[in-house]
Amino acid sequence: MTNNSDHLVRGGWTSAGGQDVILPPHATRWLAARTGLDARPTPAAPDSALTVAESALPEQVHKALRAVVGERHVLTGRDDRLGRSGGLSYLDLLRHRGSGPLAVPDAVVVPADPAEVQQVVEVCATHGIGLVPFGGGTSVVGGVAALRGDKPAVVVLDLVRLDKLVSVDPVSRLAVFQAGVVAPEAERLLAVHGLTLGHVPQSFERATIGGFAATRSSGQASSGYGRFEDMVEGVRVATPRGEWRLGVAPASAAGPDLRQVVVGSEGAFGVITEVTVRVRELPTVRRYEGFVVDGWEAGAAAVRRLAQARVLADVTRLSDPQETEVGLTLSGGWKTAVVRKYLRARGILEPCLLILGWEATSTEDLAHRRRATLRVLRQGRVVSLGTPAGETWRHGRFAGPRQRDALMDKGVCVETLETATYWSKLSTLRTEVRAALVGALSAPGRTPIVACHISHAYETGASLYFTTIVPRDTGDPEGQWQRAKAAACEAISDGALGTISHHHAVGVDHAPYLGREVGELGLDVLAGVKRTLDPDGVLNPGKLVR
Amino acid sequence: MTNNSDHLVRGGWTSAGGQDVILPPHATRWLAARTGLDARPTPAAPDSALTVAESALPEQVHKALRAVVGERHVLTGRDDRLGRSGGLSYLDLLRHRGSGPLAVPDAVVVPADPAEVQQVVEVCATHGIGLVPFGGGTSVVGGVAALRGDKPAVVVLDLVRLDKLVSVDPVSRLAVFQAGVVAPEAERLLAVHGLTLGHVPQSFERATIGGFAATRSSGQASSGYGRFEDMVEGVRVATPRGEWRLGVAPASAAGPDLRQVVVGSEGAFGVITEVTVRVRELPTVRRYEGFVVDGWEAGAAAVRRLAQARVLADVTRLSDPQETEVGLTLSGGWKTAVVRKYLRARGILEPCLLILGWEATSTEDLAHRRRATLRVLRQGRVVSLGTPAGETWRHGRFAGPRQRDALMDKGVCVETLETATYWSKLSTLRTEVRAALVGALSAPGRTPIVACHISHAYETGASLYFTTIVPRDTGDPEGQWQRAKAAACEAISDGALGTISHHHAVGVDHAPYLGREVGELGLDVLAGVKRTLDPDGVLNPGKLVR
Repeated sequence: MTNNSDHLVRGGWTSAGGQDVILPPHATRWLAARTGLDARPTPAAPDSALTVAESALPEQVHKALRAVVGERHVLTGRDDRLGRSGGLSYLDLLRHRGSGPLAVPDAVVVPADPAEVQQVVEVCATHGIGLVPFGGGTSVVGGVAALRGDKPAVVVLDLVRLDKLVSVDPVSRLAVFQAGVVAPEAERLLAVHGLTLGHVPQSFERATIGGFAATRSSGQASSGYGRFEDMVEGVRVATPRGEWRLGVAPASAAGPDLRQVVVGSEGAFGVITEVTVRVRELPTVRRYEGFVVDGWEAGAAAVRRLAQARVLADVTRLSDPQETEVGLTLSGGWKTAVVRKYLRARGILEPCLLILGWEATSTEDLAHRRRATLRVLRQGRVVSLGTPAGETWRHGRFAGPRQRDALMDKGVCVETLETATYWSKLSTLRTEVRAALVGALSAPGRTPIVACHISHAYETGASLYFTTIVPRDTGDPEGQWQRAKAAACEAISDGALGTISHHHAVGVDHAPYLGREVGELGLDVLAGVKRTLDPDGVLNPGKLVR
Repeated sequence: MTNNSDHLVRGGWTSAGGQDVILPPHATRWLAARTGLDARPTPAAPDSALTVAESALPEQVHKALRAVVGERHVLTGRDDRLGRSGGLSYLDLLRHRGSGPLAVPDAVVVPADPAEVQQVVEVCATHGIGLVPFGGGTSVVGGVAALRGDKPAVVVLDLVRLDKLVSVDPVSRLAVFQAGVVAPEAERLLAVHGLTLGHVPQSFERATIGGFAATRSSGQASSGYGRFEDMVEGVRVATPRGEWRLGVAPASAAGPDLRQVVVGSEGAFGVITEVTVRVRELPTVRRYEGFVVDGWEAGAAAVRRLAQARVLADVTRLSDPQETEVGLTLSGGWKTAVVRKYLRARGILEPCLLILGWEATSTEDLAHRRRATLRVLRQGRVVSLGTPAGETWRHGRFAGPRQRDALMDKGVCVETLETATYWSKLSTLRTEVRAALVGALSAPGRTPIVACHISHAYETGASLYFTTIVPRDTGDPEGQWQRAKAAACEAISDGALGTISHHHAVGVDHAPYLGREVGELGLDVLAGVKRTLDPDGVLNPGKLVR
């Protein structure tokens, strides 16, 4: 793996080009009619237009870091630092387009292995320099913003060189990965052994194993493969007080599960350098199908029945009427009017798309599991769209960030947010968050689209994932989204209606709301753990812990 | 629920009587031949023979506690205090039989509800008095020993009056229980709603919801229903710094999962007063079957295949050859020689009993799941014993503690211990622990039986549960077991071969070995959490945290 910044993007998920394929003219026309968008081209400004302060890293720290990783692995060039300035939230992208201040690190350190990471952490602790662990840089909650906190300087620790599969135990179905391995590479390395991790979040193409663990990631197939924290069997963590290793058995009653303290610690307690994960046999057969149910309530009830009967498909994803409408219209591959007519003839007045996907190691196994799912699904009214609809979704499963880039270039404010709650509160949560977003984003000439889906279902509840599309307020683009996000967070956390994040983590953006969820004592416990492991407070300043 | 000590037992699980039914003459004869037991009757001494010091509780504390719970709910009588003096380990029972010192509390406080528990905790914190939460008192690791630590006195907080089902959410399949509800009562209260918890550890008859959460309990049907920590959706905890409530969604990325810090905290961080649990539809059909496989390795491989194919029966339990032999001989209902001949004719030379049990809400569902299990099971050689063997196990599933009482009365040293590890290390772990126990317990005229089973299987590994039976060393009964237990713990924790406890918790007995599993940093993190929540260190002195 190279040491330079080729693996990084600034100002968007994609490099420029090919946007018309992603957002065809008919889609732009529909958005104009639906939201008031006037679709003036507003492409990203060149990097050269951005203001970047000189590095404030003290020379003695620079020297100490060079002594650990070697001269060529301490980067202080403008582009190298700019490339690790925050994640990929809408606000991050706006800032990279010239709106608002960027938090640029004073240097980027690129250690070779866990031992070097440990030494880098100790150098930063010794000199009181902030340190931000950086994997794929795909945080959408400010989790990798290079904030200084109360420190004189901050360095980004890029884990790109920790790219090894350390070991595989095929009997126990365990694999040990270094933290910087990106998900597609992890799958490639496992496939050699006939194994898979099965962790497929939308950030799959760029995100890393360490980042998944640090943020309690959840994938599109988490109904079948589990959330990432369910896969974590062990961790190796570099802390200012030394290396910490956890994980000796699949389950234990030896006190609180400290692995679950490291998982979700977002770089604030230590730098995760290795993760031992549970793996599974590589599936050889797949079947993805689309179904349509009539209305949100019927759809949510169907997913609930599947979850409570424990016959969820590996991928289980229900779009609300708004998201189904957007999907039907923007996908282009569908003939919207014909589909609507077909569905109306079958009693579906308010279509909600349900994608179900099964993966298995034999056709018999897949058929056996699919039968169990469909037997429960057919307790309610459902219309099958067959495998074409499923395959359409599967092929477009990572398109979201690319579509966002294309929409941003057309002057759209486009962002997502997510939460989860128990089934009995799910519809209230959807209604409240929708109302908050619609209320905050509506303005003369601007009508927001707020679409929602369930992508992760549990026996006791489910996640909600919202996508908002509205013409950008060119006068105050940051404030436009910040107000909407705050309104949504208030709706979610008011009376603990839902969790402030189901799979995006806390970062900077959700930190003000964490206390409502875990209580003041919960915040104190987190602060106490941080004091124990990071007494000088150098790790990921400003994230997670107050 | 009454306030007196009728619900307590001292010196054994059972009241006296009926022991010949539990341990028939043929069993005693076999034990004599097999182990060297001379089976002299050694019944428990009467309570009156035990030395109990006067209560050292300062009068002002007594007065403050009376002000909270009322005069009749602060107990200082000899029998009331003696009844909450430790749990039900072999060493506890020996002490109640007059061997070694008993840790007797200075008083027993019996609050009415979570609010009173909170006030009791605050009184103890204010006055620096140790406080031991006490549910069913079934700890076998010293978890409820009334140790003073560095405090002048210690009170036991008996949760027996917290016996309510607070609420049920049938849509989300959630139930809120007060912590003192015993498991059979929880099931009775849920059955009214057509629901079940499905948590059935061997301590089922006496153990409480709060105790399950505090110790990361695992039940006999945990392959199907999950471990207790998988069921915990929320907790309400009384801490010296105030009440702490957690749990707003089935899953979250809002930082580390603090529920998993409370679960397994063994009363050292706070007193769990309410638990929100995931519940399921009450099964209407059951099928328990016995199978026999040839030898330990083949049996473990079969269970591993079931776990990794994710088709485990709800109850999945594999006995090793030694446990199968003991079961065949002691159960009495089996004609050992005939069974052996039958199995030999089918190629089974070293029988290992495998119990599989399915529970479902319809015969179709049960049949569907059973087919999936058996399809994988039959990839190896297996002989079916049908439902009679399964039903024999089911009817005797809680007999262990009663058999132990009967054996103790015959002069036997009988105890269990448990661990877990990953599949690739499971046989090594079994061999090492067996060798440690056999080595430590063998003596002239005394040949120990060491039997083992897998009762909890996971995709990546499994638990091992050992039962030891050997004639008691009447000269040094405590030392006899302490040396054997220490040898086993050394074998388990040496090189982190397994976890020091899969479902019995840490308590006093495992505390010396916890550092090998979670590291010095892990111990520091636990101590840091305790300092945050219990700055004066009054909660459950001497348990879990150093």
